[in-house]
Amino acid sequence: MALMLYDLAGADEGRRFSPYCWRIHLALKHKGLAFQTRPWRFTEKDVIAASGGTTVPVLEDAGRMVSDSWKIAETLDAQYPDRPALLAGGAGWQHARLTKHWVEATLFPLLLRMLVKDIHDRIHEKDKAYFRASREKRFGQTLEAFAAERDAVRDQFRLALTPLRRLVTEQPYVCGAAAGHADHIVFGAFQWARCASAYPVLTEQDAVAAWRERMLDLFDGYARGFPAG
Amino acid sequence: MALMLYDLAGADEGRRFSPYCWRIHLALKHKGLAFQTRPWRFTEKDVIAASGGTTVPVLEDAGRMVSDSWKIAETLDAQYPDRPALLAGGAGWQHARLTKHWVEATLFPLLLRMLVKDIHDRIHEKDKAYFRASREKRFGQTLEAFAAERDAVRDQFRLALTPLRRLVTEQPYVCGAAAGHADHIVFGAFQWARCASAYPVLTEQDAVAAWRERMLDLFDGYARGFPAG
Repeated sequence: MALMLYDLAGADEGRRFSPYCWRIHLALKHKGLAFQTRPWRFTEKDVIAASGGTTVPVLEDAGRMVSDSWKIAETLDAQYPDRPALLAGGAGWQHARLTKHWVEATLFPLLLRMLVKDIHDRIHEKDKAYFRASREKRFGQTLEAFAAERDAVRDQFRLALTPLRRLVTEQPYVCGAAAGHADHIVFGAFQWARCASAYPVLTEQDAVAAWRERMLDLFDGYARGFPAG
Repeated sequence: MALMLYDLAGADEGRRFSPYCWRIHLALKHKGLAFQTRPWRFTEKDVIAASGGTTVPVLEDAGRMVSDSWKIAETLDAQYPDRPALLAGGAGWQHARLTKHWVEATLFPLLLRMLVKDIHDRIHEKDKAYFRASREKRFGQTLEAFAAERDAVRDQFRLALTPLRRLVTEQPYVCGAAAGHADHIVFGAFQWARCASAYPVLTEQDAVAAWRERMLDLFDGYARGFPAG
């Protein structure tokens, strides 16, 4: 049985916009593993209960479900050691882990403010009440208030990208001459924006946008092939 | 001849506060190399002219001067391959490089606002006019205006530390179980604050402060032995 990735989808089941799931899309391509995806909506907790978690990505391999994008990457390296490594222990692990924390602590809060209204508009009807209630509880305000002034948030976001911009000005990828799992992790953030919204988070002149194009080109344009905007 | 590190000093020549020089202090200790330091002031450009640069750190080894902290680390690895590696190519290099860009783009601008007035007060008399003029030109405002509201800047700084805080909550050092050059690079930022100012940039309860203590303990408390406050 092929590997199965449970993947967050919108009302249109082709719309795949989870930044965490995108890490695993590219991780599986990086390892050259064949896989299928199954669209999953926020409220389908029962479908992935066997993973022990309540969110995707979940990867099912030979009947076993694994939850959490970092744990999935470690599991893939352990299960398929003959394939190109994602983390491989040591400094590669550390590089990806620092990148993960930077992306999640610095970029995600700003992206969420820019994207949350568009996400709400694009998710399945059955998810909308859950999504609004859970997010408004977390934010302590309405989605609309949380999402206000996104142009100002975008300015902060572009400034926060400075370390990444410097890195991909010096070399093609976050991992150097070739893309690695740290690239997958950062790219997940941009694919979240691309597949959940038409709002342009980067200018076309930005070196980060050039890197994003290189990522979209990987694996015969795999990520580019998904519905965007 | 021992290795000689030209090291930024204050009016008190024991006060060593350059974040870039601190990277090399710890890099030399990490490699187990004997070295001496020579106090250097901002206006002593002629003393290091042979390095081709105008700033410290400069490392002199067998009569050859090398400028720029990253280049010095690479040179040390190339010259002393039998000693513990700092960067060692590959993912270790990438991990340190991402850390460098994050520290310089995200932490330094906030630290500078908190520290610049104290730095000005502690540098050598002969440096003060140069320091004020060059910084006020760069900032487009007086030192005093640039340094205003440092408590608010400190709140931003502590928030910006989130990725580091998560990393050193999971593991003792930025590089994992043992400190490496990425740790030296981050520590340089905190040693800058510690040796140029008495202003507490962290709370004692912060996991980042616990990591800083571990760094101060390295090499028999080497960094702790320098004048602070």
